[in-house]
Amino acid sequence: MKLIVKDMDIATGDVQVVIVNEKDAHELDLHHMDRIVVRKNSKKTVAILDIAESKKAVSPGHIGLFEEVLDALNAKHGDEVSIDIADKPESVTYIKKKLDGKRLTPKELRVIVEDIVHNNLTDIELTSFVIAGYTRGMNMNEVAALTQAMAETGDRLKFNKYPIVDVHSIGGVPGNRTTMIIVPILVAAGCIVPKTSSRAITSPAGTADTMEVLCPVSLSASKLKKIIDDVGGFIIWGGAVNLAPADDKIIHVEHPLSIDAEGQMLASIMAKKASVGATHLLMEIPVGRGTKVGTTREAKHLGRHFAQLGHILGIKIKTIITDSSEPIGNGIGSVLEARDVLWTLKCHECAPQDLVKKSLWMAGILLEFSGKARKGKGYEMAHRLLATGAAYGAMTRIVEAQGGKMPEPEKLAPAQKTFVYRAQKTGKVRTLENSSIAKIARMAGAPIDPDAGIYLHKHCGDPVKKGEPIMTIYSRSQHKLSYAIRALKKLDGVIVA
Amino acid sequence: MKLIVKDMDIATGDVQVVIVNEKDAHELDLHHMDRIVVRKNSKKTVAILDIAESKKAVSPGHIGLFEEVLDALNAKHGDEVSIDIADKPESVTYIKKKLDGKRLTPKELRVIVEDIVHNNLTDIELTSFVIAGYTRGMNMNEVAALTQAMAETGDRLKFNKYPIVDVHSIGGVPGNRTTMIIVPILVAAGCIVPKTSSRAITSPAGTADTMEVLCPVSLSASKLKKIIDDVGGFIIWGGAVNLAPADDKIIHVEHPLSIDAEGQMLASIMAKKASVGATHLLMEIPVGRGTKVGTTREAKHLGRHFAQLGHILGIKIKTIITDSSEPIGNGIGSVLEARDVLWTLKCHECAPQDLVKKSLWMAGILLEFSGKARKGKGYEMAHRLLATGAAYGAMTRIVEAQGGKMPEPEKLAPAQKTFVYRAQKTGKVRTLENSSIAKIARMAGAPIDPDAGIYLHKHCGDPVKKGEPIMTIYSRSQHKLSYAIRALKKLDGVIVA
Repeated sequence: MKLIVKDMDIATGDVQVVIVNEKDAHELDLHHMDRIVVRKNSKKTVAILDIAESKKAVSPGHIGLFEEVLDALNAKHGDEVSIDIADKPESVTYIKKKLDGKRLTPKELRVIVEDIVHNNLTDIELTSFVIAGYTRGMNMNEVAALTQAMAETGDRLKFNKYPIVDVHSIGGVPGNRTTMIIVPILVAAGCIVPKTSSRAITSPAGTADTMEVLCPVSLSASKLKKIIDDVGGFIIWGGAVNLAPADDKIIHVEHPLSIDAEGQMLASIMAKKASVGATHLLMEIPVGRGTKVGTTREAKHLGRHFAQLGHILGIKIKTIITDSSEPIGNGIGSVLEARDVLWTLKCHECAPQDLVKKSLWMAGILLEFSGKARKGKGYEMAHRLLATGAAYGAMTRIVEAQGGKMPEPEKLAPAQKTFVYRAQKTGKVRTLENSSIAKIARMAGAPIDPDAGIYLHKHCGDPVKKGEPIMTIYSRSQHKLSYAIRALKKLDGVIVA
Repeated sequence: MKLIVKDMDIATGDVQVVIVNEKDAHELDLHHMDRIVVRKNSKKTVAILDIAESKKAVSPGHIGLFEEVLDALNAKHGDEVSIDIADKPESVTYIKKKLDGKRLTPKELRVIVEDIVHNNLTDIELTSFVIAGYTRGMNMNEVAALTQAMAETGDRLKFNKYPIVDVHSIGGVPGNRTTMIIVPILVAAGCIVPKTSSRAITSPAGTADTMEVLCPVSLSASKLKKIIDDVGGFIIWGGAVNLAPADDKIIHVEHPLSIDAEGQMLASIMAKKASVGATHLLMEIPVGRGTKVGTTREAKHLGRHFAQLGHILGIKIKTIITDSSEPIGNGIGSVLEARDVLWTLKCHECAPQDLVKKSLWMAGILLEFSGKARKGKGYEMAHRLLATGAAYGAMTRIVEAQGGKMPEPEKLAPAQKTFVYRAQKTGKVRTLENSSIAKIARMAGAPIDPDAGIYLHKHCGDPVKKGEPIMTIYSRSQHKLSYAIRALKKLDGVIVA
């Protein structure tokens, strides 16, 4: 059937959409969400059909094309195109197979991931895949195949070095900026550390946000290769390189339902490690109130799955389970966390001791694991690299290679509107609940305002006198500050007893 | 945040959609598919957020509104509106609960169904519900609660009569027009039969399509009430009355993946029976090559579930499993099937004997079941009502009450382009496969062209001589006819041995 193009002046940013009037749809026996081949002269593309009930949107005899379709066909308003029903992509058959509780082969998963990356699936089909994986589960071979498919359908960074060391934390603990201390220690020890990090999604700051206080974090693949050759490591935002692009599209479906399918979570994390060619990975699974993993039992279970997956993928993995019932470090929010990091690397008296110790411990494990330190000597080596300024030097080289300049920590000023929260009575700090602290910092403006956040004067177990400050909240506006104060009072996440 | 309205000139027909530029979305920490409250003066509405990556679609500071949102706010191009993040509907929590494999209460299912009917769920959320129901399964109490919720959130026809008799076939058998013979027999016997039927989706004709050859099938609720009072029965298209409207929206999600979740299928069928107040239902489950239910074992299982569900809902159900390995009747396609029905009701020599016998058998069961005939005397009574012309008279009254006029069957002319398929050798007709016959008839133009289809000169088991006609294909165009002939030759669904 021939139809006249209406330029809808809309871009979806992903899947291609066309709209026809319901009269034409009925005539052609087409349904909402059907796949349509649209042809103009020698060009053709496949799009998803939407049906207009009113003449106003798209009148009979016309077809509304979204930007992506206009571009693909090189078509414009008033052109004539022809349409036909298209075959469903092969992946729909495999999604159906998973829905019916069957195992998928690596080839089938690869076809599904390719269709995800190329925007060939509708929301209904993609959701079905994600939900099927969640409710039916995936075995470790399926997770490994999914991981490989996700890595292979994106860009890969190839460094031809060994060992390539990586560190990852499952997250949920505010202020947990160990990565920015561990990476320079490892680089100072001669390790290759191509660290890709995420930005904050539900937290006050991601490692990428905090690193961005010091230098650019969006760099090209060729630039990254040069940095590895020159410096040995970097800390960048993974979103800037096209690593495992299927992941974002899967998260886009999981987000509205707040589901976290274990198989997809494992694949999502490990695909990015595979993309940078990691050979040794330290995986931190924090456990405690308000973290992502609720109990030690679950953490052990997850750790075993990471190890199994690493084994199949040829990545050596060490898992540590950390008791993480309160934030690490004193600063919460990009600027405040960057300041903690710099104080730590400079061995300044303001360096938060919990952050220092945890970073040295983790760096020590990685030094031994990757063969840079003898068994039992990792912590000592990490400590020496920090104390001698070697780690600070490595971080300076990394920051400069990424196009930044190391500031004095004292120059990293938090936002100007402040509220000091003081102990209501004399006693001990009993609770600083992770998710409440995160919420308060976000209400104050983090992560959108990098200088907003919290500084913790006390940690759990510390004695306090009535009237002594427990935390200072920093915000750019009185408005946001008052939201944060309200959250603090409402959440019950800070308890002195 | 205040934004300037852009009229997108698009209607979705269901869920409300707004579009903002990605710059504003980032600033406001909003994500694709977030729910947004949009306010203009005292009016407000909740819509789903889409994000425009280009300025061309929606530039920063602007918000693109779809028709439904413009109407809800009484807003126009250039107006100022404010937006805020909205809470998720309660039903999302319950969908999550089902995703995690838990049982849902009647109240929870009711909330979900209400949100489905009111277009409050995104495709992702609705798909998650449907897929969760499919992969996690629902127990009979959940199915019953879903059925009741679907019936109660739509219109209901109340007739205050007893018994109200209904008949349903799971489908998949071309030409199976028993309903149009059973209903007038029952009406002639004094039963109340408010029969709602579907149009063809994947078949060459639905009962509603075939009835439409004789009279209008889209009637208002008040008109239907009057017909029941005056005549005692009708045969209409269910889609014209707003019975169980959630069903269409659920099917819209199942369609792209060709899934048929048993729980939702049970609820979908039974909700419509509950909506018309049926008290006695005869359920036919056809079994045979190319039908929906593959084996007798599955059919028995499904029959038990229907009976259990009927018990909970207070609807008496009798299930029959029929051996349905070939089409019933000779005509396939609306006009050809209507002609078979009229020949049968007139006891004409052209009446297909398989259709006559099956209809009398099923009508007999219902006459006994509803108490109109004594046990063992149903078939006899049905036969008498047919032979005396009482059923024909009842059908005439029904057709006229619906606004039509009974034609002479000979006046029901099939389409003019024909192809006669003849036996290639002498032998017996071995196979007339349901889904192949359906496909050939659809290729010839059914159900869009009501006069297109097939006339079967032979049935399975009939002896044929070489060159004798097995079927005639009717089509409006040589083009469609050639498609049908190609399908006939390719499908191997008609075998003589």
